[in-house]
Amino acid sequence: MKLLYPTTLTLNPAQIAGFPTLTLHPYDAKAATLPSDLLDAEILITWANSAANLSFAAANLPQLRWIQSLAAGPNDVLAAGFDTSRVQITTGSGLHDRTVAEHALGLLLTAARRFHEMRDAQLQGKWPGHLGGPQPDREPGSFRTLRDARVLVWGFGNIAQCLTPHMVALGATVQGVARRAGVRAGVEVFGEDKLPELLPDTDALVMILPGDASTRHALNKERLGMLPKHAWVVNVGRGSSVDEDALFEALEKGEIGGAALDVFEKEPLPEGDKLYKAKNLVLSPHAAGGRPQGAEELIVDNLRRFLAGQDLRNSV
Amino acid sequence: MKLLYPTTLTLNPAQIAGFPTLTLHPYDAKAATLPSDLLDAEILITWANSAANLSFAAANLPQLRWIQSLAAGPNDVLAAGFDTSRVQITTGSGLHDRTVAEHALGLLLTAARRFHEMRDAQLQGKWPGHLGGPQPDREPGSFRTLRDARVLVWGFGNIAQCLTPHMVALGATVQGVARRAGVRAGVEVFGEDKLPELLPDTDALVMILPGDASTRHALNKERLGMLPKHAWVVNVGRGSSVDEDALFEALEKGEIGGAALDVFEKEPLPEGDKLYKAKNLVLSPHAAGGRPQGAEELIVDNLRRFLAGQDLRNSV
Repeated sequence: MKLLYPTTLTLNPAQIAGFPTLTLHPYDAKAATLPSDLLDAEILITWANSAANLSFAAANLPQLRWIQSLAAGPNDVLAAGFDTSRVQITTGSGLHDRTVAEHALGLLLTAARRFHEMRDAQLQGKWPGHLGGPQPDREPGSFRTLRDARVLVWGFGNIAQCLTPHMVALGATVQGVARRAGVRAGVEVFGEDKLPELLPDTDALVMILPGDASTRHALNKERLGMLPKHAWVVNVGRGSSVDEDALFEALEKGEIGGAALDVFEKEPLPEGDKLYKAKNLVLSPHAAGGRPQGAEELIVDNLRRFLAGQDLRNSV
Repeated sequence: MKLLYPTTLTLNPAQIAGFPTLTLHPYDAKAATLPSDLLDAEILITWANSAANLSFAAANLPQLRWIQSLAAGPNDVLAAGFDTSRVQITTGSGLHDRTVAEHALGLLLTAARRFHEMRDAQLQGKWPGHLGGPQPDREPGSFRTLRDARVLVWGFGNIAQCLTPHMVALGATVQGVARRAGVRAGVEVFGEDKLPELLPDTDALVMILPGDASTRHALNKERLGMLPKHAWVVNVGRGSSVDEDALFEALEKGEIGGAALDVFEKEPLPEGDKLYKAKNLVLSPHAAGGRPQGAEELIVDNLRRFLAGQDLRNSV
């Protein structure tokens, strides 16, 4: 039984070895095709594959039974046209929690501490004195620190659960919104029907929604309008979950405090896009994750389950 | 007995009231003089006073016995020429721990995640693609995440102890350097004699030294030379602790990875100063603290001690 693993990241095959019927084969995930001697593979690990590579795999691996993506979401694999009646797909959900949480925390602190404004002044050779020295402490109607800030995390999976303790440790009050309400990891998570009550009391809204049809433009003009004028939006989920036209308008009109976006409807954000110059917008180039942590452990656990005929983790 | 409290911040006098022999009087800490009916004050609270105001107080409050500064360090009060044979000075050490720690964490994440470089690209309308997408994971000889990063904190007082758990939670290994060695808040703190061994193994050096003669240019050319090429320097202590000429040279020659400075030898950093444009330098305008937290509690505790004839907290 052949397992193909990509050379787009440094996987250690020794940490996957030990299953007697299995052979491990590296492949170039950026190439438009796969070598002919690998076309009888039954298991495909994917990471940062080119669209051409995935399309080729979808059409030319007749014995394929399982794809283990190392990405947090299955979007690229789903788009490639694999026959899902015979090919199982599992994601790398969980492998990006810590890196995305760290980035989200950094973006939150950038927003609160106005590091981007400081940078703008520095580049002009100017001391941004209005951002330093003695300052008001936690004025109502401002987002200048995570201490006592009310953070709402929309999309409350494992990334949110990894991020929350860092915000709480800095003094934030964290609540969640998700399709399924309940208490998760000590945080009260509300259904989306509660957004009209939650958004007006939010200093920072952290979006960590997946990028499927059900989340498209979840943050739209109406919901942006429910946020207070000083509130920041941080998006480390998927760009499609935010209506960028509505966001641009809210930013330009000063209807929200700002937005720090790591993801966009179109990536790379096209040159000349109005968002580059939008007021109080902080741009990050889909840099939150991109470094799966513990990929071998997930692969091995799912391999064992696969060979034992058990349910796989992170099944789509 | 008169206590003068400044109107440069919002203190709640009701939270200081209750000492029968004491009367509380607000004063303008920016004014060049004090009203004549306040010149018999015995206790002076200071915060963001003008130099003129402090000099006037030093010369014109003959009954003054105690100054409670709300700043982390006593530099401005010491410079004003109070007669320290009769005037005790206590600082606001501890009131800035959380705010400075939050800022330091933000600067560390800015450095690791290259938010400043992303900003530079954004301002040019460019997608900083090299900073996003699939990335190497924790390459040796790089500082791109706090996870597994080796952070050395030089100056290990209460700010360091407040900052450390946040870094540890993100996966950093934290060690300290201070005049007094030992284990503090679970962190191994070494004497300065160990710097030649510690600096070469440092990914990020966080400086939180006070600004007195003994710390002047503590981080000099020789010690900068001991840091690895990828190491970042973050300074949220006092600007005088870093030799800025040596730092500029190390930055320009690429001998260190970068520097994120909240404090400078001269503040505001003069227009035209070479540091504005120094390679991989992130400038913050002494913005880490500036918002004392819990000032009333410290004042009350020290008032009680003062009236009881006990030792005061944060005595200089």
